[in-house]
Amino acid sequence: MGGDFAPRNVIDGVLSCVRSTRCDFRVLLAGDESRMREHLPSPIPDGIDLLHTEETVGMHDSITVAMKQKRQSSMYRALEQQRDGVVHGFVSAGNTGAVMALSTLILGRLPGVERPTIGTFLPSQKGPVLLIDAGANVDSKPSHLVQFGIMGSVFTEVMMQRPAPTVGLLNVGEEESKGNDVSIAAWPLLQQAPINFIGNVEGRDILKGTADVVVCDGFTGNIVLKFAESFPPLLKHTFRKYADRSPLHKIWAALMGRTLKGMIRDWDYQEHGGVPLLGVNGVSIIGHGSSSPKAIMNMIFRAKEMLDRHVNETIRDAMASASTPS
Amino acid sequence: MGGDFAPRNVIDGVLSCVRSTRCDFRVLLAGDESRMREHLPSPIPDGIDLLHTEETVGMHDSITVAMKQKRQSSMYRALEQQRDGVVHGFVSAGNTGAVMALSTLILGRLPGVERPTIGTFLPSQKGPVLLIDAGANVDSKPSHLVQFGIMGSVFTEVMMQRPAPTVGLLNVGEEESKGNDVSIAAWPLLQQAPINFIGNVEGRDILKGTADVVVCDGFTGNIVLKFAESFPPLLKHTFRKYADRSPLHKIWAALMGRTLKGMIRDWDYQEHGGVPLLGVNGVSIIGHGSSSPKAIMNMIFRAKEMLDRHVNETIRDAMASASTPS
Repeated sequence: MGGDFAPRNVIDGVLSCVRSTRCDFRVLLAGDESRMREHLPSPIPDGIDLLHTEETVGMHDSITVAMKQKRQSSMYRALEQQRDGVVHGFVSAGNTGAVMALSTLILGRLPGVERPTIGTFLPSQKGPVLLIDAGANVDSKPSHLVQFGIMGSVFTEVMMQRPAPTVGLLNVGEEESKGNDVSIAAWPLLQQAPINFIGNVEGRDILKGTADVVVCDGFTGNIVLKFAESFPPLLKHTFRKYADRSPLHKIWAALMGRTLKGMIRDWDYQEHGGVPLLGVNGVSIIGHGSSSPKAIMNMIFRAKEMLDRHVNETIRDAMASASTPS
Repeated sequence: MGGDFAPRNVIDGVLSCVRSTRCDFRVLLAGDESRMREHLPSPIPDGIDLLHTEETVGMHDSITVAMKQKRQSSMYRALEQQRDGVVHGFVSAGNTGAVMALSTLILGRLPGVERPTIGTFLPSQKGPVLLIDAGANVDSKPSHLVQFGIMGSVFTEVMMQRPAPTVGLLNVGEEESKGNDVSIAAWPLLQQAPINFIGNVEGRDILKGTADVVVCDGFTGNIVLKFAESFPPLLKHTFRKYADRSPLHKIWAALMGRTLKGMIRDWDYQEHGGVPLLGVNGVSIIGHGSSSPKAIMNMIFRAKEMLDRHVNETIRDAMASASTPS
């Protein structure tokens, strides 16, 4: 029931998923049964099960409301199904804050993880770079940053098949002594962590691809992510202004715009499968509120891939080795 | 003597400046006299005075070295000339940290200003937006953020002639309750300040132009600024990859690239005159290390403009009205 185009886009995505030859699992749709049936073919295709739920977490509901007052919501009930072993992964295009809070509450955290985190891929000159934390934890402590680094490293290594990914600490200068209190304290901890830590990276290094994983607090990460997302619209605006100069400019801008659109489409890695909440004892994938059916389908496949590739087991091992004094 | 192309670019910029019909002032060049004379025509054009200095602050010198061990540097001596009333503004393409520290040390702060700050213009769909603090203060307190807001508002109003500029607090959500500890505490203080505060703005709002002035701590500001600067290189890289596909793609990319270059050139507001250090009791303009002669010239004209438009007097008045309980 979550997202701007629910339940239609969610259901269309699930239909594409179960019809795909890659699909070797079943999908449980949690939501208002009669509304779901409106969008489902009859009979319901094989591979889809329904879980009728009475409530919905709205996009503007507070975390407290989602946690305390909406225990019959599709989100709450679906996560309970995972906790109880009925399903093995959870995917939602709904209220991001609620997904994070309910996933942590219901699934619990992996051993050693203080704060579950979300990592987002950004484009770079060397391929996708994981920015972590991308907004889950606005006030992060040095120990949190280290855990983000470990979880981000595991996720990148396992899911992108990039062995020993480089991890950089997002900072205002290259030297160890640079930064704010939190980043200065995090540096030596990251240095000791079981990751390929390459030191500080600056704002300009993200899109250069200097590090495979860029660690930061969730305040900075959220701002950088949303700032990055606003580049294409600025480019579009700049084009429109150029086109307004004359009919010839207009034709030229239209021709260029079409090519450019294709070129920067690859930048949108979220479209490729949502953002995982790492550190919870389960699989929880968060999609954009405006997720397309294709994005929903990719999110489900990504959840399955996280299970197949044993992301959580690997995080568990890495966290254990981090806490063992060397 | 500062910057990657000193003294050549600095002197070429000064020569363009004094030869311009807009120039109604004299320029004092501080540096090694014999090296300066190598790049100056003989006789030295009217309007240029030389101050011979023995030392130079290097681009990698620490602030402590610049403050304690290099009191005969061109930077130190030139700022002393301003303190003593010999000159009325200071411009440098040298070591940014040293310019900030020495300007604060030698010129002092305006009444009520705890931390001098640098503000940088970024492009937006509605014209230039001032991001402040852009890196001077990595650990900012709520009261600092308010002062950044006041100084940024004055600078934008006076220099860009935008009456009652809107001021937004860079944050992770629109609601007053959102953010990290510092931003949550800064919100009510900004609300009470003598500025046109419009509340929180998010990362995506910067390039949209939602606020004329975007206030943030220097850690976030530095990262956002450097991240923004790395966007054109990513675009260039994306173009190059596209061009590599075939000879036809190459021609098309070259044609597009040329137009696009012109379109995004306007994004570089620093080229238009450096970045002012606001809050010091004087005029101090910081240029990029790789400043072109044109950038140097523009920095000098901007310093003069700050004097003509009484930026510091206006900041002084605004700070006084902020500290008066209403």
